[in-house]
Amino acid sequence: MIRIGIIGAGRIGRVHARSVAAHPQAKLTLIADPMIESAKEVADAYGAKATTEASDVFASEEVDAIIICSPTPLHGDHIVAAAAAGKPALCEKPLAMDSESAAEIRRRLEEQGTPNPIVMLGFNRRFDPSFAAIHKAVEEGEIGELEQLTIISRDPAAPPKEYIAVSGGIFKDMTIHDFDMVRNFLGDIKSVVAVGQNLDPELADTGDFDGVVVTLTNEKGYSATITNSRHCASGYDQRLEAFGPKGALFAENIRPTTVRRSNGEVTDAQDPYLDFFLERYEAAYSLELSAFIDAVQAGEVPTPGINDGAEALRLAEAAEESAKNKTVVTL
Amino acid sequence: MIRIGIIGAGRIGRVHARSVAAHPQAKLTLIADPMIESAKEVADAYGAKATTEASDVFASEEVDAIIICSPTPLHGDHIVAAAAAGKPALCEKPLAMDSESAAEIRRRLEEQGTPNPIVMLGFNRRFDPSFAAIHKAVEEGEIGELEQLTIISRDPAAPPKEYIAVSGGIFKDMTIHDFDMVRNFLGDIKSVVAVGQNLDPELADTGDFDGVVVTLTNEKGYSATITNSRHCASGYDQRLEAFGPKGALFAENIRPTTVRRSNGEVTDAQDPYLDFFLERYEAAYSLELSAFIDAVQAGEVPTPGINDGAEALRLAEAAEESAKNKTVVTL
Amino acid sequence: MIRIGIIGAGRIGRVHARSVAAHPQAKLTLIADPMIESAKEVADAYGAKATTEASDVFASEEVDAIIICSPTPLHGDHIVAAAAAGKPALCEKPLAMDSESAAEIRRRLEEQGTPNPIVMLGFNRRFDPSFAAIHKAVEEGEIGELEQLTIISRDPAAPPKEYIAVSGGIFKDMTIHDFDMVRNFLGDIKSVVAVGQNLDPELADTGDFDGVVVTLTNEKGYSATITNSRHCASGYDQRLEAFGPKGALFAENIRPTTVRRSNGEVTDAQDPYLDFFLERYEAAYSLELSAFIDAVQAGEVPTPGINDGAEALRLAEAAEESAKNKTVVTL
Amino acid sequence: MIRIGIIGAGRIGRVHARSVAAHPQAKLTLIADPMIESAKEVADAYGAKATTEASDVFASEEVDAIIICSPTPLHGDHIVAAAAAGKPALCEKPLAMDSESAAEIRRRLEEQGTPNPIVMLGFNRRFDPSFAAIHKAVEEGEIGELEQLTIISRDPAAPPKEYIAVSGGIFKDMTIHDFDMVRNFLGDIKSVVAVGQNLDPELADTGDFDGVVVTLTNEKGYSATITNSRHCASGYDQRLEAFGPKGALFAENIRPTTVRRSNGEVTDAQDPYLDFFLERYEAAYSLELSAFIDAVQAGEVPTPGINDGAEALRLAEAAEESAKNKTVVTL
Repeated sequence: MIRIGIIGAGRIGRVHARSVAAHPQAKLTLIADPMIESAKEVADAYGAKATTEASDVFASEEVDAIIICSPTPLHGDHIVAAAAAGKPALCEKPLAMDSESAAEIRRRLEEQGTPNPIVMLGFNRRFDPSFAAIHKAVEEGEIGELEQLTIISRDPAAPPKEYIAVSGGIFKDMTIHDFDMVRNFLGDIKSVVAVGQNLDPELADTGDFDGVVVTLTNEKGYSATITNSRHCASGYDQRLEAFGPKGALFAENIRPTTVRRSNGEVTDAQDPYLDFFLERYEAAYSLELSAFIDAVQAGEVPTPGINDGAEALRLAEAAEESAKNKTVVTL
Repeated sequence: MIRIGIIGAGRIGRVHARSVAAHPQAKLTLIADPMIESAKEVADAYGAKATTEASDVFASEEVDAIIICSPTPLHGDHIVAAAAAGKPALCEKPLAMDSESAAEIRRRLEEQGTPNPIVMLGFNRRFDPSFAAIHKAVEEGEIGELEQLTIISRDPAAPPKEYIAVSGGIFKDMTIHDFDMVRNFLGDIKSVVAVGQNLDPELADTGDFDGVVVTLTNEKGYSATITNSRHCASGYDQRLEAFGPKGALFAENIRPTTVRRSNGEVTDAQDPYLDFFLERYEAAYSLELSAFIDAVQAGEVPTPGINDGAEALRLAEAAEESAKNKTVVTL
Repeated sequence: MIRIGIIGAGRIGRVHARSVAAHPQAKLTLIADPMIESAKEVADAYGAKATTEASDVFASEEVDAIIICSPTPLHGDHIVAAAAAGKPALCEKPLAMDSESAAEIRRRLEEQGTPNPIVMLGFNRRFDPSFAAIHKAVEEGEIGELEQLTIISRDPAAPPKEYIAVSGGIFKDMTIHDFDMVRNFLGDIKSVVAVGQNLDPELADTGDFDGVVVTLTNEKGYSATITNSRHCASGYDQRLEAFGPKGALFAENIRPTTVRRSNGEVTDAQDPYLDFFLERYEAAYSLELSAFIDAVQAGEVPTPGINDGAEALRLAEAAEESAKNKTVVTL
Repeated sequence: MIRIGIIGAGRIGRVHARSVAAHPQAKLTLIADPMIESAKEVADAYGAKATTEASDVFASEEVDAIIICSPTPLHGDHIVAAAAAGKPALCEKPLAMDSESAAEIRRRLEEQGTPNPIVMLGFNRRFDPSFAAIHKAVEEGEIGELEQLTIISRDPAAPPKEYIAVSGGIFKDMTIHDFDMVRNFLGDIKSVVAVGQNLDPELADTGDFDGVVVTLTNEKGYSATITNSRHCASGYDQRLEAFGPKGALFAENIRPTTVRRSNGEVTDAQDPYLDFFLERYEAAYSLELSAFIDAVQAGEVPTPGINDGAEALRLAEAAEESAKNKTVVTL
């Protein structure tokens, strides 16, 4: 039984708490949050202890592994502290606010003599059963070389403007998941070009894009196209298409039921998509935790790891540069 | 070039006239209808002659083969006359108003020394590309033995009550197509049980059912289920499912476009079904004509033929008996 | 917190144990099974106690409500004992081996002065999110009157012959779920006609059918058609179509992923269906438990109840009589 | 009855000849091709005359309107000659080999005093029933502003290298259709960025791309993404997705039947896509001709016209420049 401590009792911390509770080989023992009421609420639900101090989690003798759900600017400190304490960590995305901070994390890890700790980055979509099945099929050569990858990824509705203001921008906040997915499928990226859009007039004053189209290519010239929007009337729109010379693989949206409706106006009309990520990626979060537990038990550095977090950030920055300067960025 | 004469310039006669015009090896030369205006209209459109007399079609030296689209009670006379004239005929369904009349047709053909003329019965659905592809796959063993056949067949809206009054009843008028399809897939039928429904209050006084569910079994015990309704809000509902130990095959409805609509209420909503049989079975009518032309050119008795017309009637009568007496009818 | 005792630690008992563990307001405290190892295994997994005696469950002060997963012939005894102990019970289907035994259960409940206990029958499919959504839409009039209900229900593979021998026959063992679904949608049934099939040569000597087609009608003449098979190459085939004058509603099969595959042979090919009921109806079992917990907390007799269990049995017996005697059975 | 002359008896010329024959208000009277055998073959099939000289078509008193299916470098001469003869023309795409030649056509038309002749450009996809239905829905505001347009357009197999060598490059030869579609939906384009790919090793020495991804934006910042490939294992892959704040509209691929296959490996597997453009766009060619006939009868300049042909070429050149220089091109 792996005893888990969680740092951060917000929305995503609670997702992980529930996954831990449901996992046959994991148990939540401690949860830290500056808002003690929030920490207590989660702790009570799962028979764990609560604290306001993240440092308690690193120090606790009742914690074997840590899930870091703190605000992004603290990810580095918490990864370094977990490594210092010799405790494996699963850290939420993004790794850091920018590439420089990501590099700083690695420097600090080197300096303290833990250059290669057991740290997993929370790119949950890699564990989505449909995306994972397509990834496996591609790896096995089912469609030949992956020549064109098409990702459509749209949120149901924009977050509050206050969130957008501190989010680091759409590329690091939202597209980051897609950048990791592209890397997962296409490997190292050589060129990035991005178009930024201001679709929603209500968000015009945020200074951030709320729609993007990004095209990336790898060394072989194979491409990936990402289309993002902060809004989608039908729910959380999450699709992927992998195309190669022998065929294509598609991951479709998920609905709450399989019901289809026909009447005088429409036929085979389905439900809106699952909305939002907690529902849509429920299985992914659970399988992500399993992969982390497996890595902890095996004592192996898991994938995706710190490097994947850093590389996704690098793509986000390249895309931002491309969109702002209207240039193609070569990496 | 096969020169075609058509008897009957009504709705179905015009479908065949158009198919003939489009067929590279056929040409409409003569069309007969008691309403000469109607005959002329079709004749003018395709460069043919018009007449009020069916007898002209049998006698004409400019007619090599005949398509019989006359009212059902006249099918027998016209088949016999075509055979006497030595002209192949494609006769619309149903063969006759009842099994006795069907038997009478065969007696008359025997008596005049043409026991086995080139006569094709217009069970157009056998030629529908999707149904035909499934039939071929079943024959080739793709799903193993065909154990359970499920046919859903619903008209978009009921015909006028005057039509229903002379239609011979839903089993002979509407289900007849499905009975032929069942025979096409399952061969000889051993047992029939039917439930008749009165769904539409407006049709309650017609004395006819407007919905039926029929279950048929063949000698091996394999089953077919037919569900009919005289109405369907989404259009002409025509589906078929063939199930066997190795798999299943499904024919879906056809829409005018491939468009799918998503919004806040529904996702991937499609168009209503093609409505009605002229549109839905356009390809089937055309392929049926091709099969008839092929049979004419080869001088061979085509399938489906007179016997298929008679057997479908026999099933219709068994179903009617079953529904009215609430019994299982063994053939 | 409702403390739950479970009788029977077999496959279905374990499903319920897991649902109980995951339910925020329920807790497993005791599990009984003559095979104590099996009971202990479940008890250990969820922090409960184990016993060989069902009587311990009725007597226990640590049990507020009972889930009866014993063999069908014992359901009556266990329902009566639970009622005597004043403990609500969720009893697995079927209620009893036959209608007579079902009536006997009611007599005994009357005699001991508990004519109307809080007993829920485990017709889990009523709680399937897709079937439930369709039921709700039908109740709300979305398609007008429900005129034709079509249920396709096929198991992936037949159970062992030993199971079939004591199963009570396919109508009571397998179709029973569909009979309850038909009653749920159409209310009281007036007429039943069933065709029994022997599809799998390997099962020919069991003396039981392994395929059935049943047509039922209610007082208004609206129909339901059930098609069952003990085998299905693509997995657990569970579909339902509700048709009325204003439209139709369809529940489709569920796959493990949303992946679609295209290549030179096929396009948009999907995964086989979820296989088997534990996976396919995972959500249904969980929602069923919630409904039971709600009823327990409210102190109300839940639906489906003992009467529903008895009525489903009556339909099973009518269908068996119809299939064996080749008659239409009027109720 | 409009009497039609066709210049060019190749593949596309024959498509139009058939459409003309089937059109109730049009009739083929003359067809010109330097290979007289080819011209005669078409002429004989439809009761027309044949000639080797295009000039005969412009001069003929039996020709009311002309369909230009000559090689692209001759389009300009033939458009100018048709205008000089006062005969409306439907000219195949692309308008010319490059923008300069397109401008030259306009200069010549001005000089000869026919600045605005009745000339339609053969962008047949605008008339595809599904694309047209989506265009209409977008125009009617069904999804709000069209924010993101996604076009997937893949040929089943590359043309011969000899064809590629004289094709003018993939952007002008293949993507030209998609550029017109983008303009049709988004209006004037302000920025273009394209990625060119060399996917098929066999085509590496052609000096042309065989895959492209193009992103275009209009003045409002709304985007269109085009993904092309010269090969697709499943057939002619032609899809379109229009996304806006109120919803999305999808045009799916077309198959020869509606058959779905399920077995132990896959479920609901469909047929490969219709292959190739003659089949896929059969309805579009026919509706395009109808629109042309309507314009001829009304004496109005049709859409899409010469300007649309020129603008599509401009986008093709911008995309080529972008792909070759790895820059974003602003128009």
